[in-house]
Amino acid sequence: MIKASIIGITGYTGLEQLRMLLAHPEVEIAYLTSRQHENTPIGEIYPHLAHLDLKITDTDHKEVAKKSDVVFLALPHKTAQSVVADLHGKVKVIDHSADYRLDDLPTYEKFYGLHTHPELFKSVVYGITELNREKIRTASTVANPGCFSLLTQLMLLPFAGTIAHVDVMAVTGSSGAGKTPGESTHHPVRNHNIKSYNINTHRHIPEIIRTAQITPEQISFVPCSGPFTRGIFATAFVQTHTDKDPKCAVETYKTHPFIRIQEDVSLANIVGSNYCDLSYKKISDKRYILQGAFDNLTKGAAGNATQVMNLMFGLEETTGLKNLAPLYP
Amino acid sequence: MIKASIIGITGYTGLEQLRMLLAHPEVEIAYLTSRQHENTPIGEIYPHLAHLDLKITDTDHKEVAKKSDVVFLALPHKTAQSVVADLHGKVKVIDHSADYRLDDLPTYEKFYGLHTHPELFKSVVYGITELNREKIRTASTVANPGCFSLLTQLMLLPFAGTIAHVDVMAVTGSSGAGKTPGESTHHPVRNHNIKSYNINTHRHIPEIIRTAQITPEQISFVPCSGPFTRGIFATAFVQTHTDKDPKCAVETYKTHPFIRIQEDVSLANIVGSNYCDLSYKKISDKRYILQGAFDNLTKGAAGNATQVMNLMFGLEETTGLKNLAPLYP
Amino acid sequence: MIKASIIGITGYTGLEQLRMLLAHPEVEIAYLTSRQHENTPIGEIYPHLAHLDLKITDTDHKEVAKKSDVVFLALPHKTAQSVVADLHGKVKVIDHSADYRLDDLPTYEKFYGLHTHPELFKSVVYGITELNREKIRTASTVANPGCFSLLTQLMLLPFAGTIAHVDVMAVTGSSGAGKTPGESTHHPVRNHNIKSYNINTHRHIPEIIRTAQITPEQISFVPCSGPFTRGIFATAFVQTHTDKDPKCAVETYKTHPFIRIQEDVSLANIVGSNYCDLSYKKISDKRYILQGAFDNLTKGAAGNATQVMNLMFGLEETTGLKNLAPLYP
Amino acid sequence: MIKASIIGITGYTGLEQLRMLLAHPEVEIAYLTSRQHENTPIGEIYPHLAHLDLKITDTDHKEVAKKSDVVFLALPHKTAQSVVADLHGKVKVIDHSADYRLDDLPTYEKFYGLHTHPELFKSVVYGITELNREKIRTASTVANPGCFSLLTQLMLLPFAGTIAHVDVMAVTGSSGAGKTPGESTHHPVRNHNIKSYNINTHRHIPEIIRTAQITPEQISFVPCSGPFTRGIFATAFVQTHTDKDPKCAVETYKTHPFIRIQEDVSLANIVGSNYCDLSYKKISDKRYILQGAFDNLTKGAAGNATQVMNLMFGLEETTGLKNLAPLYP
Repeated sequence: MIKASIIGITGYTGLEQLRMLLAHPEVEIAYLTSRQHENTPIGEIYPHLAHLDLKITDTDHKEVAKKSDVVFLALPHKTAQSVVADLHGKVKVIDHSADYRLDDLPTYEKFYGLHTHPELFKSVVYGITELNREKIRTASTVANPGCFSLLTQLMLLPFAGTIAHVDVMAVTGSSGAGKTPGESTHHPVRNHNIKSYNINTHRHIPEIIRTAQITPEQISFVPCSGPFTRGIFATAFVQTHTDKDPKCAVETYKTHPFIRIQEDVSLANIVGSNYCDLSYKKISDKRYILQGAFDNLTKGAAGNATQVMNLMFGLEETTGLKNLAPLYP
Repeated sequence: MIKASIIGITGYTGLEQLRMLLAHPEVEIAYLTSRQHENTPIGEIYPHLAHLDLKITDTDHKEVAKKSDVVFLALPHKTAQSVVADLHGKVKVIDHSADYRLDDLPTYEKFYGLHTHPELFKSVVYGITELNREKIRTASTVANPGCFSLLTQLMLLPFAGTIAHVDVMAVTGSSGAGKTPGESTHHPVRNHNIKSYNINTHRHIPEIIRTAQITPEQISFVPCSGPFTRGIFATAFVQTHTDKDPKCAVETYKTHPFIRIQEDVSLANIVGSNYCDLSYKKISDKRYILQGAFDNLTKGAAGNATQVMNLMFGLEETTGLKNLAPLYP
Repeated sequence: MIKASIIGITGYTGLEQLRMLLAHPEVEIAYLTSRQHENTPIGEIYPHLAHLDLKITDTDHKEVAKKSDVVFLALPHKTAQSVVADLHGKVKVIDHSADYRLDDLPTYEKFYGLHTHPELFKSVVYGITELNREKIRTASTVANPGCFSLLTQLMLLPFAGTIAHVDVMAVTGSSGAGKTPGESTHHPVRNHNIKSYNINTHRHIPEIIRTAQITPEQISFVPCSGPFTRGIFATAFVQTHTDKDPKCAVETYKTHPFIRIQEDVSLANIVGSNYCDLSYKKISDKRYILQGAFDNLTKGAAGNATQVMNLMFGLEETTGLKNLAPLYP
Repeated sequence: MIKASIIGITGYTGLEQLRMLLAHPEVEIAYLTSRQHENTPIGEIYPHLAHLDLKITDTDHKEVAKKSDVVFLALPHKTAQSVVADLHGKVKVIDHSADYRLDDLPTYEKFYGLHTHPELFKSVVYGITELNREKIRTASTVANPGCFSLLTQLMLLPFAGTIAHVDVMAVTGSSGAGKTPGESTHHPVRNHNIKSYNINTHRHIPEIIRTAQITPEQISFVPCSGPFTRGIFATAFVQTHTDKDPKCAVETYKTHPFIRIQEDVSLANIVGSNYCDLSYKKISDKRYILQGAFDNLTKGAAGNATQVMNLMFGLEETTGLKNLAPLYP
């Protein structure tokens, strides 16, 4: 059994990571930590987990690492910088923060601010299994991608290197904003609403740039908030330099178990599961409409991280994730 | 034209009061005030009102009163105590706070704390038009009822004086919690959820006691939060001392234009309107099931206050409120 | 008072038209007709209207016309063809169907099938007040636009004649699918879902082509169904032939009372009202992101038709529609 | 491995049963049958299952039984009567229909109509594991309870035999109405709505009567439809003959793994999981407020049936059901 710990359990990413690990047949929980709680049964914070005999502690991360085979970091951006630096090479680490997703210091600084350990950028593997499967197998530390950026990258990957321009409109559920109440997730505001925010300035854009082989000028990215809890539904209008057969996507993903090329994409089809549904339609010469959807907390965060863990430990990539049968209706 | 002002415009009650007044053919807006804003176009705070040429000011309430025929107070509980005391008798006042809803100091203090002006309790009229229509016509200050308490009182009114016991389960929309984001209105929590809170301790209970002619021991009140924005849907299980014909409700409300006795009650039928739908079913000897629904912001707050205003100014009770055609679907 | 009738009252468009007319100070209802109902109080079909003393009859449309100043047709496509032909020139007619929205028979036939009265195409005015205000004033019959097409046209109008290419992604509420239950509006399917349908084949596309001065090859239109009841939220990615200042939109709409140019567009800001919110952002040379939202039943159908009626009767364009204060939250 | 088949796979109960079986480590699927489909990959009907290599066939139920260790029937009421009769004793059967839930022919006939095999009533075990665990272990055929009735019975079980009167108000999600679109599940009607139906006539009432040891006169049952997809949230007002300590519920359920006695009950805490949350509050002498919630498709249908299967095959009762980690948010 793999001894797995989650540092930063109380947020939605940590919580979903726990959901994944509880469903995993090869994992046992070592530590669940949070700075705000000491020896608190998890059911006191999250009553939907009241049946579990698990405690939240504020154990130091180095101590956690000693007793664990893998540590999932579900910490705020910037906070993870030094924790990764402390643990890198001593235990397998899967980092949900943005701190090691980029390999370029100026870009990191532009979007997030100072970084104390840029020397680790080259050592941390970017955790898209569909792109970096082999590197992930031997990685010590993996940076799990951002949700919007992972979905967009998965949509664009079959077209990477041939994109002249792409416009993306992506609608996300409210869980993407995390556990802390705010104006944009206030129910009277969010319910029965759609609005966009951070057009062309969203922090997930540089991750997309990195793998889609485009410049910032070649993409418009319109993130929107939608009136549902889980999932992202994205539409991309793509122009290519050369004509492509949209069936190339089938080829790209033929060995990747959680990517489904569908005729049509529907948000409800992926909620609660680790599947990412994609569709590719050719509109005219060099013009395409791509659509994609996944659960932002699952394939968009903790499910993907579990795939990564499976690879790092030599397990079948789908272990514990197929148990997680899709939830519909 | 009636010159009307709203003190405390930025919360949901003030905002709904403005919606009512904008639709009223006999009203012109004098002042919209808020402590946090000075000379701010209302569209900057609420973009859905961007077309209006109205400003929010922080004008002192005495100054507001001088230039107004009626002042609506949409202030927090406790804050309204002294403002009512300052304005009472100088301008017509309709108070949305709980500060003058009760006529009994110990009960007020038990549920809300200290009161600086209990001497006004007897002068302020409790604003249920279906109960106190004549007193409201000549009132100087009216206390608008709480939303849960108004709906429950309207349900029970035809049975008042004959109730042996009543159990109420009432589900409210998220707008009832107001404008400030919090745990219970966080979209990932509220969406797809129902839960109860403050069972038998909710502050609206003493208002119900007052008019239903029962003691606290004769009622259980279970307020619940539901996954929608507007409206309250309530079910009451009533036992009476003597057998009643449920048709008595038709008689009670025959001259009251916003009460509709329906075969069945459906939340969607009242959203956005000032109607209150009620149903009365006899189950067995001395046992009844009552159901009721209204929009907590409209008939449950600002619509009722507008009815009150109409009476205070000798207008037809429905003026400006029938324009407000029900919104369905 | 204008005597107004609605032929086809039982669907959502007819119902919303009634909501508009009930809030209008210059209108009295003459007839509300439906083939399926004879002398039925409207509250029996729609309990949210139980307080109204109005009956649904199956009066013949010619008889209706004799007693009316204006007739709103809320009939299915194809059914309206002959009714318009019967009434044209005898009474003012505002037609909610698609039957006279296009001025070109082959296009009509391609999207809808046979037409028995194409000779009337040139006599019926296309009902966009922001485009055809003067023609509407003197029209006998007006074709009210489709909801997706009206919003898209309003978004594109300031750029008409300069568009090289446009990609539109528009999400609509479930009321757009009408009153008849179906797979796509089944609550377990629609709730917590977004999906697209009829990409580049939607029937509203030829209306857009007509006024945006583009060919079908220059537009991609992705209609989506969203998990809410009312409203459409659209995002358009526009490339122009020549550089434009996005502020041109302010100029285009400066005399049009229901168009609001906003910094950001939010679906909740327009629900229940007749306002259409638009935003224009320049991204780079000749590239723009446009967003728009309106209530598909109000400005997207019955509210727009009421604006049209106001013009046809020489009333202020906003009469009865400003009473309809926006509903938020 | 247990060879399991589902007869009637295309409805929501069959679909959820498949979700349970896919997550079960000791089960392999033998047949998934439907009269309407022959050799259809399940992904064609349900795209969220597109990754599965499973076919729907119209194999005769006797043939299915020969190749299976257990057969789940997800057939309409009445249709299951003869299928159970054909299979009883030949294969383990778990029947989701109402056909064998009652042990009394006149009651069955009153609520459902004719029954062709009442002689089997005594042989079929009623599938509440918390009540009939030992009988289920050795049963050949088990009738899975109705969703409303199971939740209400689980709430009342600790008080069974002492109840003087109980009033229940229970709100269910739209999935409870099944896969066929209808008026009450039409999104524009269901969204933002609550309404009651079949007060005191709902078909699930006789099941409750059976185990709560009360007469029909001692219960009022108000089923309501709510604006969410999954789950039932119920509140019961109970009067007892003798005073009870509400902590008795803890004792009743101490060996039952899916019942959680919580301080407060919240619908969101159980969605997607097999847990049933219950709370017990004493209000005054002999008066109690009970609340309960579970997922109508999981613990209210297919999850409970899987618990039943585990018992019938001598497995740990929780096998495959704890993998199914609760879904929150």
